[in-house]
Amino acid sequence: MKKLINDAGTVVSDALAGVAAAHPGLRVDVENRVVYRASGPRRGKVGLVSGGGSGHEPLHGGFVGHGMLDAACPGEIFTSPVPDQVIEATKGVDGGVGVLHIVKNYTGDVLNFEMAAELCAEEGVEVASVLVNDDVAVRDSLYTAGRRGTGATLFVEKIAGALAEEGAPLAEVAAVAADVNARSRSFGVALSPCTTPAAGKPTFQLADDEIELGIGIHGEPGRTRAAAGPAREIVRVAMDAINEDLPLSGETLVMLNGMGATPLIELYVAFAEVDAYLREHGARAARTLVGNYVTSLDMQGFSVTVCHLTDELTRLWDAPVETPGLRWGR
Amino acid sequence: MKKLINDAGTVVSDALAGVAAAHPGLRVDVENRVVYRASGPRRGKVGLVSGGGSGHEPLHGGFVGHGMLDAACPGEIFTSPVPDQVIEATKGVDGGVGVLHIVKNYTGDVLNFEMAAELCAEEGVEVASVLVNDDVAVRDSLYTAGRRGTGATLFVEKIAGALAEEGAPLAEVAAVAADVNARSRSFGVALSPCTTPAAGKPTFQLADDEIELGIGIHGEPGRTRAAAGPAREIVRVAMDAINEDLPLSGETLVMLNGMGATPLIELYVAFAEVDAYLREHGARAARTLVGNYVTSLDMQGFSVTVCHLTDELTRLWDAPVETPGLRWGR
Repeated sequence: MKKLINDAGTVVSDALAGVAAAHPGLRVDVENRVVYRASGPRRGKVGLVSGGGSGHEPLHGGFVGHGMLDAACPGEIFTSPVPDQVIEATKGVDGGVGVLHIVKNYTGDVLNFEMAAELCAEEGVEVASVLVNDDVAVRDSLYTAGRRGTGATLFVEKIAGALAEEGAPLAEVAAVAADVNARSRSFGVALSPCTTPAAGKPTFQLADDEIELGIGIHGEPGRTRAAAGPAREIVRVAMDAINEDLPLSGETLVMLNGMGATPLIELYVAFAEVDAYLREHGARAARTLVGNYVTSLDMQGFSVTVCHLTDELTRLWDAPVETPGLRWGR
Repeated sequence: MKKLINDAGTVVSDALAGVAAAHPGLRVDVENRVVYRASGPRRGKVGLVSGGGSGHEPLHGGFVGHGMLDAACPGEIFTSPVPDQVIEATKGVDGGVGVLHIVKNYTGDVLNFEMAAELCAEEGVEVASVLVNDDVAVRDSLYTAGRRGTGATLFVEKIAGALAEEGAPLAEVAAVAADVNARSRSFGVALSPCTTPAAGKPTFQLADDEIELGIGIHGEPGRTRAAAGPAREIVRVAMDAINEDLPLSGETLVMLNGMGATPLIELYVAFAEVDAYLREHGARAARTLVGNYVTSLDMQGFSVTVCHLTDELTRLWDAPVETPGLRWGR
């Protein structure tokens, strides 16, 4: 294992120091492990807090900023944040009108966010939660009861973030977050495993001619293994799974997401196949993201996330955003 | 070799189809292999054209758009674009006041852009050129006489692009481009080799405990090999080389660039070390980029590029930009 780190035990803190140095728009509490907007909290604005294990960067810390999250709680690598982090973040972003927790469906995340929400409520901070569970690959998994939460998390953070920025009340922000999740489906494919710094060896083994279909973002098993084939065949498996679960139609928001170690040129090759598939099925990629957004350390592979748009969701997607990982004009 | 491609022979065309599908702000001439702004050319604006081998995405096609390039010419993987591509692009972006070619210093790129510039001049298009040669690692290299052009290319494209957008004449745009290059220095480190689709095997071999210092962006050799150590030691070698060549001071623009397969969390660990080094040497990272910008397919590793800022260069860096790879508000 060769990694660009100082020590396997300090990766998260060392990286947070780098985030703090690189992004003056963020305030990083390295000790308590919370990434905030430097400008926050804003009185009268619903606060958005997310978090989860580290190793998925830019998710979540890279999505803190105007138009998206107010704070993110990074856990250790592939490990849920502890309730204290979430409590700290929730209180820290409270603008007096409540806080939305955006939680990916992993057992540890769910439990720790729930515990934090209860404790914050006892202290007078109103908290609503949305559970993201967009991954159609498997029903239950190594770390999850029910579907896993993956790429749609970014869509939820962006769209709910835009609505919160406009001053909408907590119930509406929570409702749009749930709606985005309900309209989104994802499927991931691994060409290689990933290696956590602590373990120092790959999370699983794949033969040279083998890929894992329906992989999670922690190297947890997918649906099945298959022979490595051309991108168009691999993409078709992913898109078939998405289309079987929620038939494609109309205008969609599509993310072709790299798992961390796949070159961008390959992601574009795959995106061309996604686009062709959508057209064949009477749908259209009206909005797109191609790149590394919800990663799995040094895993080679990709995931596709499709969200069925409405005019209102498109408007909120297009709203200004200014975060390290997603940024467009005001 | 497992790659997310259809066929080693069609990677560039297949990826260009994906770029076209993903980015309605671009017009992609897949047959002639030129990526244009969909809106261009603009009468009275200097056109900016760059290009080079593919495999470095988002460079250059991902930097076409408002505030940066007018067109990019992608060659085959790690192969210079042919003069016909550059001629096509140059004529295609000519707004009547000349075109700037931004050329990385590789022998093939230099020859082919020169040939194209001469032929365009004969046809009445005024062309100026800037040669980017920021890499302090080696004097000559496998594909280069003199220093290689690497990360500073992005800085040149952004800053010259901003000045061109303001309507500055060709001579001024060329002058600021040359100035940015003169003020910039880079150094790259590989933790692993990369594998081109055509070759199907790594461009070189590194032992499990070995890294290559001063690597180029095509897997061409660097200065030396060394034992893999902590990020802070590796970063120090890179920063020492940059600082010895052009002593650090004052406000700088710093890019901590991933070579394609290094997780973002590791790039932030390295950036924290870069930031600490700058402070120790009386300099400051006034503007920063951390991510995959000038890549080398699936190579693990990073490069650092430092540009010594002036108030005017900072102003141009901050100017609005809207490209797939770099985007911030108007």
